[in-house]
Amino acid sequence: MKHIAVINGPNLNMLGMREPDKYGTETLEIIKERILAAAEGLDIAIAFFQSNIEGELVTAIQQAGALDGIILNAGAYTHTSVALRDAISAVAAPVVEVHLTNVMAREEFRHISMLSAVCKGVISGFGADSYVLALRALV
Amino acid sequence: MKHIAVINGPNLNMLGMREPDKYGTETLEIIKERILAAAEGLDIAIAFFQSNIEGELVTAIQQAGALDGIILNAGAYTHTSVALRDAISAVAAPVVEVHLTNVMAREEFRHISMLSAVCKGVISGFGADSYVLALRALV
Amino acid sequence: MKHIAVINGPNLNMLGMREPDKYGTETLEIIKERILAAAEGLDIAIAFFQSNIEGELVTAIQQAGALDGIILNAGAYTHTSVALRDAISAVAAPVVEVHLTNVMAREEFRHISMLSAVCKGVISGFGADSYVLALRALV
Amino acid sequence: MKHIAVINGPNLNMLGMREPDKYGTETLEIIKERILAAAEGLDIAIAFFQSNIEGELVTAIQQAGALDGIILNAGAYTHTSVALRDAISAVAAPVVEVHLTNVMAREEFRHISMLSAVCKGVISGFGADSYVLALRALV
Amino acid sequence: MKHIAVINGPNLNMLGMREPDKYGTETLEIIKERILAAAEGLDIAIAFFQSNIEGELVTAIQQAGALDGIILNAGAYTHTSVALRDAISAVAAPVVEVHLTNVMAREEFRHISMLSAVCKGVISGFGADSYVLALRALV
Amino acid sequence: MKHIAVINGPNLNMLGMREPDKYGTETLEIIKERILAAAEGLDIAIAFFQSNIEGELVTAIQQAGALDGIILNAGAYTHTSVALRDAISAVAAPVVEVHLTNVMAREEFRHISMLSAVCKGVISGFGADSYVLALRALV
Amino acid sequence: MKHIAVINGPNLNMLGMREPDKYGTETLEIIKERILAAAEGLDIAIAFFQSNIEGELVTAIQQAGALDGIILNAGAYTHTSVALRDAISAVAAPVVEVHLTNVMAREEFRHISMLSAVCKGVISGFGADSYVLALRALV
Amino acid sequence: MKHIAVINGPNLNMLGMREPDKYGTETLEIIKERILAAAEGLDIAIAFFQSNIEGELVTAIQQAGALDGIILNAGAYTHTSVALRDAISAVAAPVVEVHLTNVMAREEFRHISMLSAVCKGVISGFGADSYVLALRALV
Amino acid sequence: MKHIAVINGPNLNMLGMREPDKYGTETLEIIKERILAAAEGLDIAIAFFQSNIEGELVTAIQQAGALDGIILNAGAYTHTSVALRDAISAVAAPVVEVHLTNVMAREEFRHISMLSAVCKGVISGFGADSYVLALRALV
Amino acid sequence: MKHIAVINGPNLNMLGMREPDKYGTETLEIIKERILAAAEGLDIAIAFFQSNIEGELVTAIQQAGALDGIILNAGAYTHTSVALRDAISAVAAPVVEVHLTNVMAREEFRHISMLSAVCKGVISGFGADSYVLALRALV
Amino acid sequence: MKHIAVINGPNLNMLGMREPDKYGTETLEIIKERILAAAEGLDIAIAFFQSNIEGELVTAIQQAGALDGIILNAGAYTHTSVALRDAISAVAAPVVEVHLTNVMAREEFRHISMLSAVCKGVISGFGADSYVLALRALV
Amino acid sequence: MKHIAVINGPNLNMLGMREPDKYGTETLEIIKERILAAAEGLDIAIAFFQSNIEGELVTAIQQAGALDGIILNAGAYTHTSVALRDAISAVAAPVVEVHLTNVMAREEFRHISMLSAVCKGVISGFGADSYVLALRALV
Repeated sequence: MKHIAVINGPNLNMLGMREPDKYGTETLEIIKERILAAAEGLDIAIAFFQSNIEGELVTAIQQAGALDGIILNAGAYTHTSVALRDAISAVAAPVVEVHLTNVMAREEFRHISMLSAVCKGVISGFGADSYVLALRALV
Repeated sequence: MKHIAVINGPNLNMLGMREPDKYGTETLEIIKERILAAAEGLDIAIAFFQSNIEGELVTAIQQAGALDGIILNAGAYTHTSVALRDAISAVAAPVVEVHLTNVMAREEFRHISMLSAVCKGVISGFGADSYVLALRALV
Repeated sequence: MKHIAVINGPNLNMLGMREPDKYGTETLEIIKERILAAAEGLDIAIAFFQSNIEGELVTAIQQAGALDGIILNAGAYTHTSVALRDAISAVAAPVVEVHLTNVMAREEFRHISMLSAVCKGVISGFGADSYVLALRALV
Repeated sequence: MKHIAVINGPNLNMLGMREPDKYGTETLEIIKERILAAAEGLDIAIAFFQSNIEGELVTAIQQAGALDGIILNAGAYTHTSVALRDAISAVAAPVVEVHLTNVMAREEFRHISMLSAVCKGVISGFGADSYVLALRALV
Repeated sequence: MKHIAVINGPNLNMLGMREPDKYGTETLEIIKERILAAAEGLDIAIAFFQSNIEGELVTAIQQAGALDGIILNAGAYTHTSVALRDAISAVAAPVVEVHLTNVMAREEFRHISMLSAVCKGVISGFGADSYVLALRALV
Repeated sequence: MKHIAVINGPNLNMLGMREPDKYGTETLEIIKERILAAAEGLDIAIAFFQSNIEGELVTAIQQAGALDGIILNAGAYTHTSVALRDAISAVAAPVVEVHLTNVMAREEFRHISMLSAVCKGVISGFGADSYVLALRALV
Repeated sequence: MKHIAVINGPNLNMLGMREPDKYGTETLEIIKERILAAAEGLDIAIAFFQSNIEGELVTAIQQAGALDGIILNAGAYTHTSVALRDAISAVAAPVVEVHLTNVMAREEFRHISMLSAVCKGVISGFGADSYVLALRALV
Repeated sequence: MKHIAVINGPNLNMLGMREPDKYGTETLEIIKERILAAAEGLDIAIAFFQSNIEGELVTAIQQAGALDGIILNAGAYTHTSVALRDAISAVAAPVVEVHLTNVMAREEFRHISMLSAVCKGVISGFGADSYVLALRALV
Repeated sequence: MKHIAVINGPNLNMLGMREPDKYGTETLEIIKERILAAAEGLDIAIAFFQSNIEGELVTAIQQAGALDGIILNAGAYTHTSVALRDAISAVAAPVVEVHLTNVMAREEFRHISMLSAVCKGVISGFGADSYVLALRALV
Repeated sequence: MKHIAVINGPNLNMLGMREPDKYGTETLEIIKERILAAAEGLDIAIAFFQSNIEGELVTAIQQAGALDGIILNAGAYTHTSVALRDAISAVAAPVVEVHLTNVMAREEFRHISMLSAVCKGVISGFGADSYVLALRALV
Repeated sequence: MKHIAVINGPNLNMLGMREPDKYGTETLEIIKERILAAAEGLDIAIAFFQSNIEGELVTAIQQAGALDGIILNAGAYTHTSVALRDAISAVAAPVVEVHLTNVMAREEFRHISMLSAVCKGVISGFGADSYVLALRALV
Repeated sequence: MKHIAVINGPNLNMLGMREPDKYGTETLEIIKERILAAAEGLDIAIAFFQSNIEGELVTAIQQAGALDGIILNAGAYTHTSVALRDAISAVAAPVVEVHLTNVMAREEFRHISMLSAVCKGVISGFGADSYVLALRALV
């Protein structure tokens, strides 16, 4: 059995409530259920975490560093955080960057990812499926 | 009666002690008193919050999202925080961005606001009066 | 009694006719009435001026230089005029920059203000209320 | 019968005298004659205007706003004027931007047009014929 | 009788099918009919060509180099092709750059034309009429 | 049964031969086998295409426009091709952009994608698995 | 006897009143007296003009185009005016650009001159003496 | 006896475990021991702090503001944090910026320090010795 | 005997006809003769190729990948083609980039070469001799 | 009697020989004679120096630091030399920057002066008269 | 005993005389005495060198290349000199870059160091102590 | 017999000693021998010069200005020296710019040549052969 952490960044706790035309009506709780269901089928144990605080996400990555993989949706910190980038570099676990929406089709400041260069790969634009595809990619 | 949150960002807890020639000698406590006095006259209940931590400010905005309005002085995070921008977009309450000083008259990196585009309006340069004007603007 | 000049720049004479979804349906005449009403309550005499010509706005600022304050909505010249900036620097009266709309939420070339750095403060995004708030700020 | 305004900007009154190798030897008066002749054949009444003053051009566009079309050669203000851009946006009449010369083959600061984005279309590089083609385009 | 080539670039073969709200419902075949009709009235023989391949467009311009004129809608290659620019410079025939839409009102990367500087002139924004106006401009 | 086109751009025919430390030792033929095998399991019929010529890729996308989906690895044209971007916009089929390597970890000119903004989503960095994940994402 | 026009731009009518630590205490009237005195000694007739309006400065240059020289202090328009640049190019008279202060020692947006490239020469930083040196340079 | 705070930013708690070819094999604990040993010899009392959270570092600087000096290795926040910059400006204690590695020899986004301009000085590139040299510099 | 491919890009088939003041009056055929003559003296067999189509040049480089060397004048594609860059990287043969003219003395967009970084060396500015020097360099 | 140093930078020793259409046919020796003649009339003693070596010019400025003024034509070093800028700041004597040609009408890299900001003033475009005007400006 | 060269660049010979509010009143001679005293205590022999000429500094670094270390204050050349950078790369001795002042708190063109990336480390902002700290760092 | 100067810039005297993996193990003396041998075969007399001092290179070019050609490896000054550029423009002799390595494959600041635009041609990347090819190009 593999162990994978799913780490979510700022405002993802507002999913379903926040701009539903952009992010859909699924809450983070529902997405979590979907990930757990998919993980069960793939024999993966999931550790699920969300925080609005950049430094807590850094710590979460550090603590998941010995797992079989990390799925990271860093939300807004994707575009600015050198600290998360360093955390990803500092751990052994492969990290897959995911996004619900196609960030390249949004504002220009969202086109830059500080994280992609140090991640294993990127999956964006498929809503909650982005997470499930990342699970498969890590297996 | 209306309910409005006044949310203050990093280093604003140092007001009165920090560079008094730039920020004046009034402490945040005194500014709070002035806001409360003005609010009373306008029949507004004020929830007052300060934090140095970006993610706690994100959470504060989320929690004030159902109020009648938010007055936000995000301090240094004004210029860099995509997370605060997303939080403002995620809530229904109108947000007024305020600044004690005229930020456009300071260093160039303070000329950019990540937040203005998703706020209702901006009031800057009038010291503690910026908050009081924002109260009136929200009423 | 205080004396304050309200100076309006290009195309503001088209208010109410021009892109009402962006600027509302109030004409400049109606806004003027609202300002005069608010000024009366604050014991302020208002001198009201509009021109499409940059240089006439420069002259208007120069001539209002000895009043108790100037409220300036320089419209499109806000983003390009060094001449208006120099006029503001040249007068003793404090100048408050106002905008009907939240300019930071519009095209990128409107994000730059040549004027803010030499104004006392900025109020933008509150429609005609921006002027009334500026009156209060000057008092 | 249609009514169309032909509005010319700064230094176009110098045509024929100014840098004839670049702008040809036809004066603005001769170009006007050519436009009038072509308009007659197309059953169009022409209002012809020239000014060196940006704000007067803004006013001219405002006043022609209810006509069937405006042909605008804003000369040097093409590259810098947000005020003219706003005036074009503010009127109902379709505006065609014309240039005598091919501006893209000249200095780099002439490659930027502040106006094109809000015009109906652009015709440049055909000398006085640019105006006549614009007449046809508006019909 | 004059001979003029009308050369069309990538995706113009999709006209009428592709984003009709942006490009209208006329197919390239219909536009061709309209050009032929207008050409007949002006005693012009038309050679009509379309390709999605940049190098074939280069060759088409080279082969039309001895005609009385070339009307070029290079589509997406307008914004990036140094090869087309060199082909235009290499031929004697005057080239008129045309666009169906007003490219300056679209995404920023479409504001740059690699071709305009070496063309005789530019006509954009008038739909199929852009071609007909170009015919007249060449005569 | 669904129909999906897999379209590959320049130099991908060199896979296995070209810089194996960067792209692995699998040839495009082997990758094709893997995609076919996965497609069979998902009841998908695959149309497989490769070309070094930008315009042929444009045509391939146009021709696959009525299928259930397109998986596009545009290789080097990803970073420069407005023509491919327009082709993607012009077709009804959803397009998934894939990359074998994590392009964000390579040279800076590979960080820009002209295509992502008009694709459904992006999957990069998982070698041949990027294609298989894209198949699943489209189903 | 030679004829030279001295043309002054926006806010120069405020000299002596405006920021005296930057521009000195001499009014424009006093500077005019000094220029006239120096001109007398050099047998030059001076035409003296000031306007805050860019277009009037354009016209003034056009009207002085047949004189023996023009001394131009375009003030704030120096940094932005393509129209003045075109006017200078359009006249036969040599134009000398002058500045009271050393503009290169001030804000960065004042480091760019749109005019210098088409002037005969530039003299800046010597207060009222800049004009007198320009007179000598033209003789 | 002097009192100096040593404040460490994100991921420095991973030292010794993280990319040892870049940061060496010494843990933060070992570095702390070395600093304490050196401080003893110089009669300095050390307060040692580490956090991954930007806002906690802001607070730590505020709380150390009355000491004799602060040694700050802000890690990844060095390059982006306006909040830390403001905290440094807000305290009386001189702050020395230190780095284990020579940041100028790494990625370009690490070449910018938001903090250096408001620090007393910078020492970078000497591993744990950077801290010890900073101690001496403060004495 | 060595085998070397000489590959020429867009518009080079127009040599002698195209802008002779810039490129001389020698046709590509004459240049080919000169190269063959020089090659004979150096005991080299030449494969000569020209195409206006970027993708055909990519294929040509791939097919020449096992020869002793490639001389590439990619013409206009030099400045924009990532695909050619990748093709050069993908082959074992050393590639020498040649230009007839000194591209650094021409328009700014020609100063950038996407290819130089992955070529063995560059020779530019010596007309047809550039090819002959490249032959010698490869031997 | 006043003492003024005239310091000339690289390639000015080639005057009269070098590009006479740009710099005229006067040699530096002739210019020196003209300066000496003018200086005599103004009761000024001139120290004249030329070097191609940046550091020798730095030393020359240092050695002239106690004179009544320095006239500096730093030639090509004007655009790049921080060392000359520092030397000018380091001396008490006022420095006037002169240029024979109007540098703003030449290549873009000559539009930047590293020196102007720390000089008393600038005179450019009047050939050898630039020096004579500078002498008068210093008196 | 170790041998270390201390190499100083342009205008450092003016220390004590030049802008004492920025650089202090200590002359370079006094700083040398302080370095020699500190070196004695650390059993280091110092070779001390100063030149205003970039190329002589290059040569000095080359000649010190076999010593145990080089302390380099390149002054103004720090920000522009590729030649010094190459010299540092060319020698075996570790080089420590020092500055008297905190260069990051000065003009923006001083924020760039061409040298830091190839030095061992950087120490700036501690006046003459910067040199002494560098001595300790090299031991 | 022809006379050609070979002029070498900073740090080229370190060849063979400096970064041999980048520049090879041949010393400048050996390269000189190779050039002399090749020159003898082509009946050319060589004047050979090296200096680390920019201004001495300027003087060397001036003094070789009447020869039949100059081969210039300006080393690090290639990327920054306007003075060398002016020297090249000032002399009649054709100048060939050479580089041992392929500068376009190195750091980005080495991609810019201040010299290429005024040289006859450029040869880079062939080690010592670059010089020999330049000899042939000049003949």
